[in-house]
Amino acid sequence: MSLGDPIRMKLKQSAAKIDGFIEEQLKPRRPEVLYEAARHLIEAGGKRLRPYLVLRSCEVVGGDADVAVPFAAALEILHNFTLIHDDIMDNDELRRGVPTVHARWGIPIAIAGGDLLFAKVYEVMTGAAGALSCDSVRDCIERVTEAAISICEGQVLDTSFPSLSDVSEEDYYAMIGGKTAALFNACSEVGAIVGGGGPEEVERLGGFAWNAGIAFQLVDDYLGATADEETLGKPVGSDLREGKKTLIIIHALGHASAEEREKIERVLGAEDASPGDVEVANGLLKSLGSLDYALESARRYAERAKGLLEPFPDSEAKRDLLELVDYFMERIY
Amino acid sequence: MSLGDPIRMKLKQSAAKIDGFIEEQLKPRRPEVLYEAARHLIEAGGKRLRPYLVLRSCEVVGGDADVAVPFAAALEILHNFTLIHDDIMDNDELRRGVPTVHARWGIPIAIAGGDLLFAKVYEVMTGAAGALSCDSVRDCIERVTEAAISICEGQVLDTSFPSLSDVSEEDYYAMIGGKTAALFNACSEVGAIVGGGGPEEVERLGGFAWNAGIAFQLVDDYLGATADEETLGKPVGSDLREGKKTLIIIHALGHASAEEREKIERVLGAEDASPGDVEVANGLLKSLGSLDYALESARRYAERAKGLLEPFPDSEAKRDLLELVDYFMERIY
Repeated sequence: MSLGDPIRMKLKQSAAKIDGFIEEQLKPRRPEVLYEAARHLIEAGGKRLRPYLVLRSCEVVGGDADVAVPFAAALEILHNFTLIHDDIMDNDELRRGVPTVHARWGIPIAIAGGDLLFAKVYEVMTGAAGALSCDSVRDCIERVTEAAISICEGQVLDTSFPSLSDVSEEDYYAMIGGKTAALFNACSEVGAIVGGGGPEEVERLGGFAWNAGIAFQLVDDYLGATADEETLGKPVGSDLREGKKTLIIIHALGHASAEEREKIERVLGAEDASPGDVEVANGLLKSLGSLDYALESARRYAERAKGLLEPFPDSEAKRDLLELVDYFMERIY
Repeated sequence: MSLGDPIRMKLKQSAAKIDGFIEEQLKPRRPEVLYEAARHLIEAGGKRLRPYLVLRSCEVVGGDADVAVPFAAALEILHNFTLIHDDIMDNDELRRGVPTVHARWGIPIAIAGGDLLFAKVYEVMTGAAGALSCDSVRDCIERVTEAAISICEGQVLDTSFPSLSDVSEEDYYAMIGGKTAALFNACSEVGAIVGGGGPEEVERLGGFAWNAGIAFQLVDDYLGATADEETLGKPVGSDLREGKKTLIIIHALGHASAEEREKIERVLGAEDASPGDVEVANGLLKSLGSLDYALESARRYAERAKGLLEPFPDSEAKRDLLELVDYFMERIY
């Protein structure tokens, strides 16, 4: 049994609870197609990592995870809203093994479906006020909103990178910070607030999740460059062909000779690059040490995340969060 | 001097205050193109009817309009978010005399720009908490969210109508209720809450604005069918050619002979309908009494709106709201 098995079971248990709650919130109203479109990706699957962060962070500060369920659901709903809109922006046709919302219903319904989910995030949070002080709810709403703004900024940065010739490591981290880590950060902050954590605990758990989110994204990019087609769910070299500026690419371009650089740039953003050219470029990402560099960076963020949990007393929830980070890293092997 | 002049001046005064506040909230951050796109339609103009409703409703219950400024701004931001996304969904290239956001920056930036505005609605509201009780802010957030959900539903209904052969009056009112009246309703409710109004006052002002919103939309549809190209800003018969199912069309189709029905349906949704055919169809909307029917309906909603204000003591703000309804109706003459 690999490390991933108990955590996978725990993710499933928490997912079942969240999914039941979300289903209640998205009961069809008129026009039904809008609600169908909004539920589509949620029903198609997903690991529910973000709700898991909310629930376990709530428990780490001694709170009752049941009280956090609506907030965990709200953050999963927010995540799915961003997926629907990102898929339109990135022109992606498949996700979680199913057609994306716009591929199935067209762009207008996909835009409205995403907007509906975004509104539902707030409906769920304000509706969950009963068990919590109004100030705590407002604090949660503020942090979720801040994350939503960061996601918009990160997504537009991501969209702009393929057409820029000079993207720095700093740009890359600003982009994944906005697109991925800000939401992770909000999840743990909200969980800690709902659990009654003090300001220092809230910031610390937020920092944990931020660093874990950066590690998660770095691993995602690493897998995008190394996994085979079956694991990846899309052709090898897709990231290269799409012109994505991952840390791997940025490192490689910064360390390549003029000739090597030319070989990488030949396939970067070239949808019709030949498999042979992709193989050559992929080989360079390895020989230039760029894959190792990204992996090392991911490990550093993962360690930083885990280090931030040290001051918390031992608990099952704390061990779960530490294991979650290991699980992010373990996907590589 | 027509009735519209003092109200136009008052609208301008209140708009100046709101615009300054909004500008502060949308100060460019990175990536700047996102903020530029988000500000585009707001900077292009608009009458700021919704903030006006917020401020005057606040005063009608004895509140200080200055406290309501952030909420008035939030509701204008929400309105502009929906315009950006609606323009994508409706494939509209021009609004307020400028290219729409997606026409200028493309669909991805327009989606993200709208999403950013939607998030800003909540940032502004939670940030305005100082002068108000937390419970009042939460109440406002709930009502704004409810309106946002109605707008999504109304927009999808609107999108679906051109392809439906049988749209009833009830369907039409459900659609404009969601697309237009729900936001008007939220504006006056929020204004009344911020102004310290009791539950009965909040509901009554909300009802006023709901009915005024329905009247406003009916007049808009009337103008869409009768105004000349210059007033309209688009070719005569555009609504017909786009296949919009306004109350006018629904009435006409329900009262036409088989032959007349055929003449209307020939241009309904036919982008390339000839000017002659459009003129024939337009003539039928008049001779079947459909234009008068819509106008009568608008007048009825306007009277209902004004009637709901009766119990409030006389004040400048109350007179302003009554005049606003007259101004909606006056656009016809």
